[in-house]
Parts: sequence; C-alpha cells; structure tokens
Amino acid sequence: MLRSEDHFLEIVDSLFPLEHEHMLVGRGDDCAVLQCPERLCMSSDLFLEDVHFRTRYFNPEDIGYKGLAVNLSDLAAAGARPLGFNMNLIWPGYLDESFCRRMLASMAELAREFDLALSGGDLSFGRSLGLAVTIWGKSPERNMLRGQGQPGDIVFIVGEVGLARCGLILLEENDPELDRFSLAVGRHLRPYPLVSQGRELTGMKEVKGLMDVSDGLARDLPRFLGPDHGLELYQDFPVHPEVRAFCRDRQKEPLMFTLRGGEDYALLGVCSEKNWEKLHTGLQDLKKIGNIVEVPGIYLKGKKLELKGFDHFEKK
Amino acid sequence: MLRSEDHFLEIVDSLFPLEHEHMLVGRGDDCAVLQCPERLCMSSDLFLEDVHFRTRYFNPEDIGYKGLAVNLSDLAAAGARPLGFNMNLIWPGYLDESFCRRMLASMAELAREFDLALSGGDLSFGRSLGLAVTIWGKSPERNMLRGQGQPGDIVFIVGEVGLARCGLILLEENDPELDRFSLAVGRHLRPYPLVSQGRELTGMKEVKGLMDVSDGLARDLPRFLGPDHGLELYQDFPVHPEVRAFCRDRQKEPLMFTLRGGEDYALLGVCSEKNWEKLHTGLQDLKKIGNIVEVPGIYLKGKKLELKGFDHFEKK
Repeated sequence: MLRSEDHFLEIVDSLFPLEHEHMLVGRGDDCAVLQCPERLCMSSDLFLEDVHFRTRYFNPEDIGYKGLAVNLSDLAAAGARPLGFNMNLIWPGYLDESFCRRMLASMAELAREFDLALSGGDLSFGRSLGLAVTIWGKSPERNMLRGQGQPGDIVFIVGEVGLARCGLILLEENDPELDRFSLAVGRHLRPYPLVSQGRELTGMKEVKGLMDVSDGLARDLPRFLGPDHGLELYQDFPVHPEVRAFCRDRQKEPLMFTLRGGEDYALLGVCSEKNWEKLHTGLQDLKKIGNIVEVPGIYLKGKKLELKGFDHFEKK
Repeated sequence: MLRSEDHFLEIVDSLFPLEHEHMLVGRGDDCAVLQCPERLCMSSDLFLEDVHFRTRYFNPEDIGYKGLAVNLSDLAAAGARPLGFNMNLIWPGYLDESFCRRMLASMAELAREFDLALSGGDLSFGRSLGLAVTIWGKSPERNMLRGQGQPGDIVFIVGEVGLARCGLILLEENDPELDRFSLAVGRHLRPYPLVSQGRELTGMKEVKGLMDVSDGLARDLPRFLGPDHGLELYQDFPVHPEVRAFCRDRQKEPLMFTLRGGEDYALLGVCSEKNWEKLHTGLQDLKKIGNIVEVPGIYLKGKKLELKGFDHFEKK
C-alpha cells in the first residue's frame, strides 16, 4: 500500500529527474518555473480507467506508457518538440505500491526517450485510476492547423489506422486468438507517438496542415477538412493486413471498419497534388488516402459513406 | 442532457472567449500555441467529487469557481501573473446541461476577473464529476521558494486560516446553524485566490519566501520552513472569531483546530525581524504568527505541539 503522499512523492522523485534544462524551479514548490520558448504548445488529455483503459488487460506499464503517449501525439500533430508535462494522478486505494512503481517507471522511460521534464502535478484518492496529463513543448515557427486543404489536394496519413480499434475489440472480448493480432493489440495498448514524423512534416513547406487521428477518420477527417470540404477516398485505401484478417473472421467490411476506428494516433496531413511526389519521396511512410472535394462528407466512387466515429457522449 | 461532445464544446465557446493576447492558436486544434513569457509558472490541481467537494452542498457555481480558484492560489504563492489554463473535465452522465452551463459560467466569470485564456483541455465521461486544471502564467523575476527563512525570522500569513475547515465540518454535518458561520462556509465553498497580494509581496525584496497554505499549517509549515527549522508560535496567534465560536460550541481547542485546518489558500511568507515593521506598514493584511527556531517542529511557549495536517492517503 502507499502509506502517504510523501511516500508517493518519494517514488516519483526516484523515477523522474528533478533537473531539466527547461525547468528553473522544479517540482516540490507551489508551482514549477519553466524556461520557455516564446511560442509554447500545450495540450491536455484524460486517461481514465474503464473509459480509456481497463486494468484487466492493460498492465501497469501499459497504463503509464499510454497515459503520456496520447499527449505526445497531440504535440506531434503540431510539429512541436515536447519538453515537459504535468501529471495529475487519481489513485484508488485498492492498488498497491508495486502497481504504482511499475506504472510510473514505464511513464518515466517514455519521458526519458523524449527528454521530458516532469514539471508538476497533483495526487488524489479516487474511486478508479485516472491520469490527466498536460504536456508542453516548443512550437515550430508556423502553426500546423486544420482546415488548410483545398479541393484537389491530397490527404495522406502517417502510421496505421484501424489497428487500435481491432485490438480494443479483441482485448474487450478476451479473444483466444490475440496472438494472431499482435500488432493490433500492441497498437491499442502502446501507440507510439509520431513526434519525429510530425516535426519532419512541419519542416517541409509543402505540408499545408497536420492533425492527429485520435477519434477515428470518420470523425476526425471532417474536423481536418473543415465545414466546406469533403474527401473522395482512393479505392486502394490502405487497410492493414491484420484488420483485413479480423474483418474476414467477423464478416465486417474492412474499409468501413478502418474508417470508424479510433485511438490509432496516426497523423493526417494535406498537400497539393503537384507536391505529392516530392513529399512522398522525402518521407516514405506517407500513404495518400484521397483527394479533397468541394462538398462535405467522405465519398467512395462518388458515393457518400454513412459513418460515425467515437464520441464520449454518444452511445456506441 | 448533454447530447454530444460538440454540444459541450458549444457551451464552452459561448462562455470562454477564443481570443486572448497570449493565445496564438486557441482551442479547437490539436493543441494551443501560446505566446509565452520567457519564465513561465505552471501548476496543476485535481478537484474531485466526494474527495474535494460534494454536490450536496456545492452548487454548480461553487464547483466551477473553486475548481479554478485553487489553481490561481498556486500562482499567487509564486508571485506570478496568471494568464491561462487548460481544463480537463470528467463528466458523469446523470448531470444535466443546466448544471454544466452554470458550473462553466461561474468558472468563466472568475477567468474573466483574472483575464485568463481557456487554452485547451479534454472531456470524458466518468463515474463522478471531476476537474483537473493546469494553470500557467508569467513568473516574476525572482523565484519565491520555500525553505528561505533563518532562525529569528518572522513568519506571517495573509488571509485567514482555520475558517475553511470549520466551514467543511458544518457543511458535512448539515449543521442547522450554518448562517452563524457564513464566513467559514463561504471560505470553504469559494476561497478567493490572493493573486494581487502574492504579486505585491513578491515585489517587496524584504519578503524572502512565499507559499500557499492548502493542506493546513500543521502540514504546510514544515514544508515552508524546510527540514532544519521549526516555528515558535506567538501566544496571540490570530484565531478567527468564527473559529473561536465554533470551537466553543464543540469544546475544541481553537489554536490546535486552526493549525490543523486545510483549504484556506492563505499565503505564508517570511521576512527578517528587522524588516517586519516596513512590510507590515506597506501591506496591512499581514499577520505575524511566529519566529523561526533552529529545531524542526511547531512550538508554543517552548513546548512542541503534536499536529498532523491533511494527507490524501492518511485516514482522518
């Protein structure tokens, strides 16, 4: 058991360094004082038990990892260099010290990989485990916004989509064939934040806009395109082999499944048709998925698709 | 009922302006881009139902107010000028739209008073209502730290202590005489953040250190003094008249009660004995409470007091 707040802080201090080039006053005072770039990116995400994860199939390391990774993904989509984060932890009494250590050690490992300072936070008891992380970093010179594409432009993705939803379903159902879908399961438990890809894309002036896909393409594409535009999908839309296999087993339509899947934390970008070759050659992981059209909606062979993505307030 | 995430965001946008001199890219993209001072203060606090507040006696306006106010108090203790905040909201399905509007309108009013930008956040369903706010602001040139006092120095408070605990007990017990203790009750429901006092004190070079008292003097004084020092309390320690009346009714020792009380969000400061008159004349709300001594502990007439403050992990 965690004996006291001080006991918890000891664990934190043993895992997260108190020194960082951007931290003038670190944790332990009323608030941190940070040496900041003039343009700062900041983003917050909740990561809650039984909403965003379950302790039945997330081990402590997965929770610590993903609670921070989803925040890194927001900075990735802004092309920012992450520098630090504040961590609010809601801690239920029934979890033990070892759970806490393992969870935080895994978070600390990811923080170290990206050279992040833990700049503060808060701790409270609660009925179920929860993390609320606010991440901050150096913004690039230009703002990587949504709604920057024009009709005819190419929309592309970096990373995979659909895999994480496939993993989620398999884990929820405790499927005996989890091993057949190790990529999908891994993508749900530990999405890798595409920070370096986001920074690289931001550095290429041909990329007009960028966004991370957290709620699924069905929901995020309209946000990315803006209210006046839609997307005509290519017929060879890149559906991942594991998603294909999963959909074959369950008689689902793989494209529709992929478009509805959330939590992949892939990046969505846009460039003009003429710049595509240049971009594509420079960054080989890009996959183009469609062309922007003048009417809202997502289309395949000119036919509008009926789609819904993830909304915390809507019934699934 | 809140119909969707977009519905919630509509309410937010109707209450919190999207424009702010320090917000280059506002809410609605992957992350905000902020125009930052070089030295930035940042702090986070959780504010959770049935841990930090109860909906039985906190109305929606109180919750919205206090969820932000406790964060402002952290910046007050750093002498910082608050500029903006991110708000993570955990929303239980049983609350209705009117509750949400009232809560956020009250938070927006406090934000307006301090000219704060709402720079982002996240929203999720959850079992009970919760807020996790991260506030940021301009740090003063010098760091207002803990552990700066020396033996003989005077420790003082700005604001009252003990009142909020008195209010909490009365509210928890649904006491029929709540009206007799309106200050105490008000202090628990709506602690006013002492931002201008914090900035003023920071501007006076005689003030060596500053801290906000959120967990009670019994717990916060040792943190403020550091491991090598203690405090000899003055015998005329300022116990508030409502706390006196409360303790008389219940046969409690008023000083001990006051020292154990948390959540007042008063400020604790330290200066040398010779500078006290100057400080006191400049800022009339200061009350000196004791002198620093060379041994850890809190003393009255040379006798060490047995005290404990608030710890989220310890039984009360």
